[in-house]
Parts: sequence; structure tokens; C-alpha cells
Amino acid sequence: MIGIIAGTNRPQSRSLQLSALYQRVLQEKNQPSQLIDLSRLPSDFTVSALYTNNGKNPVFNEFIQQVRSCDKLVFIIPEYNGSFPGVLKAFVDGFDYPSSFKNKKTALVGISSGDLGAALALSHFTDVLHYLGAQVLSQKVRFQGIDKALQEGQLLNPKHLEYLHRQAEALLAY
Amino acid sequence: MIGIIAGTNRPQSRSLQLSALYQRVLQEKNQPSQLIDLSRLPSDFTVSALYTNNGKNPVFNEFIQQVRSCDKLVFIIPEYNGSFPGVLKAFVDGFDYPSSFKNKKTALVGISSGDLGAALALSHFTDVLHYLGAQVLSQKVRFQGIDKALQEGQLLNPKHLEYLHRQAEALLAY
Amino acid sequence: MIGIIAGTNRPQSRSLQLSALYQRVLQEKNQPSQLIDLSRLPSDFTVSALYTNNGKNPVFNEFIQQVRSCDKLVFIIPEYNGSFPGVLKAFVDGFDYPSSFKNKKTALVGISSGDLGAALALSHFTDVLHYLGAQVLSQKVRFQGIDKALQEGQLLNPKHLEYLHRQAEALLAY
Amino acid sequence: MIGIIAGTNRPQSRSLQLSALYQRVLQEKNQPSQLIDLSRLPSDFTVSALYTNNGKNPVFNEFIQQVRSCDKLVFIIPEYNGSFPGVLKAFVDGFDYPSSFKNKKTALVGISSGDLGAALALSHFTDVLHYLGAQVLSQKVRFQGIDKALQEGQLLNPKHLEYLHRQAEALLAY
Repeated sequence: MIGIIAGTNRPQSRSLQLSALYQRVLQEKNQPSQLIDLSRLPSDFTVSALYTNNGKNPVFNEFIQQVRSCDKLVFIIPEYNGSFPGVLKAFVDGFDYPSSFKNKKTALVGISSGDLGAALALSHFTDVLHYLGAQVLSQKVRFQGIDKALQEGQLLNPKHLEYLHRQAEALLAY
Repeated sequence: MIGIIAGTNRPQSRSLQLSALYQRVLQEKNQPSQLIDLSRLPSDFTVSALYTNNGKNPVFNEFIQQVRSCDKLVFIIPEYNGSFPGVLKAFVDGFDYPSSFKNKKTALVGISSGDLGAALALSHFTDVLHYLGAQVLSQKVRFQGIDKALQEGQLLNPKHLEYLHRQAEALLAY
Repeated sequence: MIGIIAGTNRPQSRSLQLSALYQRVLQEKNQPSQLIDLSRLPSDFTVSALYTNNGKNPVFNEFIQQVRSCDKLVFIIPEYNGSFPGVLKAFVDGFDYPSSFKNKKTALVGISSGDLGAALALSHFTDVLHYLGAQVLSQKVRFQGIDKALQEGQLLNPKHLEYLHRQAEALLAY
Repeated sequence: MIGIIAGTNRPQSRSLQLSALYQRVLQEKNQPSQLIDLSRLPSDFTVSALYTNNGKNPVFNEFIQQVRSCDKLVFIIPEYNGSFPGVLKAFVDGFDYPSSFKNKKTALVGISSGDLGAALALSHFTDVLHYLGAQVLSQKVRFQGIDKALQEGQLLNPKHLEYLHRQAEALLAY
């Protein structure tokens, strides 16, 4: 089972749209997957699920179970202020160490409205995942100018969709 | 005015203790400063202060005003999972762009219970601050083994306290 | 005096062309500068100027003197394999520690034929300069698609030239 | 076949000693390996093997063949000025793109005389290898205080040797 993590809690985010698209890409390859939608995180999870409250928030615990049930993960990561969204990292910080991410095989997709395609965000997040003992596929996909590139949940440029297919195949073989 | 940001919302954190210590270091140099304590963030700020709710949370707005009132900032950054805490980044993500951090002069202190002293966290956060247009002092302080190094709010090793003094002086001259 | 370091030893590089252009930008602001052209490095400098041979290569020593004579430095950094050129780093490795870069004020320009504008290269090199105690201006300039953007030593897009002017002004005020 | 790359051209380096030690670790697991010793690089390789001279230096070409003959690679990376050695990167820059590193499975060992264990160097080099399409094992080994930790080619602390064994096993299973 592959989990696809939409890396922001922003409602109706492009990350969520791209996650749904990635799910269809996997479906075409007969690979079951599930969305892990951070916009459904408890609004107070940075208090109620972290530190001394670790393990006490039932909704957050469902997220933990969802991650545990997957052996591979795709992260759709929008660029926020030159790195990954704080909420995505706070989500990861809510897991115990040695964490549920250990030994997972992961693939990263970066998106940005600007021209960087979240390059630094993906580099930083690779450091985080390596720290946690997850394997990170070297084939990273970066989409720049996502406001134009993604319209009504579809990637306008067929080459862009092809990038997702190639990454998905590499992840399946990883 | 220098703001000292305790980079986690964990209650009674070592970051907060070190922030108080840094404040005393500045006081000895007759430099006024104020604590910016992320443990006082509204528990739902990742929903109530970000995205379409930007500017609508009165408590978060006070944090914004606090940052704006400072021309220099010190960040005390604990290492969480090989990077900075997600909550610290979510805090930064709650500011408008071009953000209130622009042109601020900043100094970074990293702390870790392990042996890295948050080296990667400081590198990642430098990328974030540079993206925001803040200047980052090259003199970074890293404390490893903080559980032992910091006892009852004091740094046991006089050399460690000296590191803070030297950085504070560099920040005042920056 | 500002030194402009063309960050590759590739003959007739775009980095060198851009360095010459940067020099004219500084000239318009009545700021004296000099080119530090790595294509003039001794071909065996990675052996004859490093390690036990430190300080023994007269041509490399002239480079060291050139860097020492400048209080500010501009680095033009082409993206090579997702980072800065090895030769640029080997050049820096040829200096003693605590190095001649300490306390210099520096500005970074990244160039790439692809779409990244050497973003990762600039992040990595910031880590290097901070390690050496140099200050790094947060205003970094990144040029993507440099093969088209730079023609016969000129930046075709007036906005691109404007980026250099703005950075140069920030460096002069730094 | 596993290639072990001693990541500096410094003669009699600790990286080379550690490479020999790693080779014995692999030997105990009946895994053939070969040393790729950068101290044997042609002294002028940054001129005679790069750019327009690509492919023209017979000694450098032997290095390329050596890398090509391995399906997995171990990099022993000493920390130089807060990153990897320039010479290691210049070595990589001497390969054509899409390079001979593509799809190789790699493991990283960082060493430093200070307390960082080359953490930033390994992060930077991960970016380089990912750019080249090589897979990088998340299990990275970092040795701090290498001057004391490594004596006459042996790791004094048995736990340190154990780290190499565990990484080697992970690489064999990768």
C-alpha cells in the first residue's frame, strides 16, 4: 500500500489536487494507494498530539495508523518560504522516534508558484527523511509555475504527467 | 530592540530556558530585548492564523507586532528530526510575504540532545531566512548534549556561556 | 576593494563573462573591483597548493593575496551536478584556516542552463562561507537558462541586469 | 562489485585508511570490493580531464572505468570547510552527464576532526548524488574526532566498527 501525503493543511490545496492525480497514476498501474490529507489534521494538533500529549489525540493516532499501514509514501510538498511547510514538519514531529517512517520507501514531488519547484524544500525534507531512516528515491519531481501548470486538477503539459508516471514506476521498483 | 525567539511550543523547553539566559547576556551589555515564546501560540494557529485566516487571529497578530517591533532577532532552535521544529516554521509561515522578517538581522543558536548541535536545522533555517530577506550572522552557536550542558537554566561549561557572549557582541555590531 | 570570483576554471566561461559584467555594474557606482579568475589557477593546484604544499605555490599565493586585499567578494557560481563546481571549493580548500575569507562580506550569483539557477549550489556555498566566518548577503541572484539569457557578454533581459544592480547596491551598503 | 571512494587526494589520508578498513568489513561478508583512491588522480585533472578535455586523460579514464565496473559505491567523505572536499566534487564533475553514477546504490561515511562528523558535507553530497540519479542509503555514518577515533588504521571504539558493519549490511541489501 502506498500513502500519498498532501503536504499542507491549506484547504483545497494544489497539493491535494496533485495527490489525487498521483493516485490515478498509481491506479493505472494497479497499485492501491490512499490519500493522507493533512487538511484533516486536528486544528490543535501541534499542542494536543506533540510532546507530553504524544499518542493521546485519537484523530492524530488515525494518521499514525495510516502511515504505518503503508510501506511506501509519496510526499507532495509545496514550497513555503524557501522550504517545506511547517505543518508538514510538525506532522512528522508528532510521531514517536524511532519513528513509523523508518525503512519506508519514499518519493518526493515539489511544487511552487515561482521558478524553484521547491528545490530547497525537497533537499531539506530529504535530510529529515534520512534522519528518520526512510529511503528517498533520487528521482524527484519538481513543478514550477504550478498555478498555471495545474488547472482543474489536471497537468496541462503532457510531459509533466509523464514525470509522475516515471517517478511512480521507479517507486514501484524501489 | 532584539527579540529572542524560543523555537518550539514545547512547554518548559530548554529553548525557553536558553532564551532567558540569552536575555541576561544582552542585559549585561545594556541591550533591551524581549522573549517571543512560541509556547504561547494559540493552540489552533496552524488553522486560525494561516492561509485565508491570515491576520484574523488576535493573539497571533500580537506575535506579528512583537516581531515587527524588533530590528534584530535571535532564534534558539532545537533539533527535531534532523531539522528545525515544524512549529517554528509554521510560525514563520503565518506571516505575510514580503514578510516582517525582511532586513532583520538575525543570529542562530542550535541545540540538540545528540551530537549534531542542530547543524542541519541551522543550515535549513538559514535558507528560510535568506529567502525572506533577513540577514543571518555567520557566527552560529551549536550546543550538543544539551540535556547535560544546561542545568537549571545555566550552562555548566563557562566556554559555552562565552559562545553566547561572543555571538551577542557580533549581533550588536552587525 | 571588491573581488569578483568567477567560480569555475572552464576557459571562456559564462561565469567569467558575467563577472566582467558585474565589474561594469560596480564601475557605474564608482566602486573599484578586480576579477579573480579561476581559469588562471595553476593546472596542478589541487596537489601543489593543498595540504603539505600549502603556501608553496607562488601563483596560488597571488590568488590568496588578491582575496586578502578585498574586503568584499562576489561569487559567480555556475551549477555543476546539483552543487557548486568542485574547482571553486578546491580553491577555497587551498586557503589556511582561520581563513582569509573570515569577516569578508560576500554576495552570491548562481547561474544554470537548467531551471534551478543553482539554488542548491548557493545554499551549499552559503554553508561553506558561514563555516569560514564570512557574512553572506541574503539577496542572492539566480539566473536560469543562462545559455539564452546571456549573449555576447550581455544580459538580454533588462530585469536581469537590474537584479545585479540591486544586489550590488545591497553589497555596498552591507 | 563495490567501489570504495576515498574522498580526498590528500596523501596518506585518514579517508584512505578508513577505506581500507571498510574493504576488510566487506571482505568478512564475502563481498568483493575495490579502492578508488583519489590521491592517484593526475595532478592536473581539473584541467586535463574536464570541459573540452573530457575523455582525453587516460589515467582519469581508468577512474571512470573503475566507477562503471561497480554497481554500488561507498564514499568516505572528510569534512573540509563545512562541506565535502572540492577535489571529490571536481572528480565527479569530470564524468559525462548522464553520468556513470546514475542508478548506482551508494552509502556515505563522513569524518571530521571536529564534532560535526561532516553532517553538512553528507547533506550536500546527497544532493549531488540525487542530482546524478544515484540512490543514497539513508543510513549514513558520521565519525567525529577522527584524529583520536582512528589510530593506525583501526577504529578504537568497537561501536564505531559496528556502525560500518551495519551500514555495509544495509548497502548489501539495498
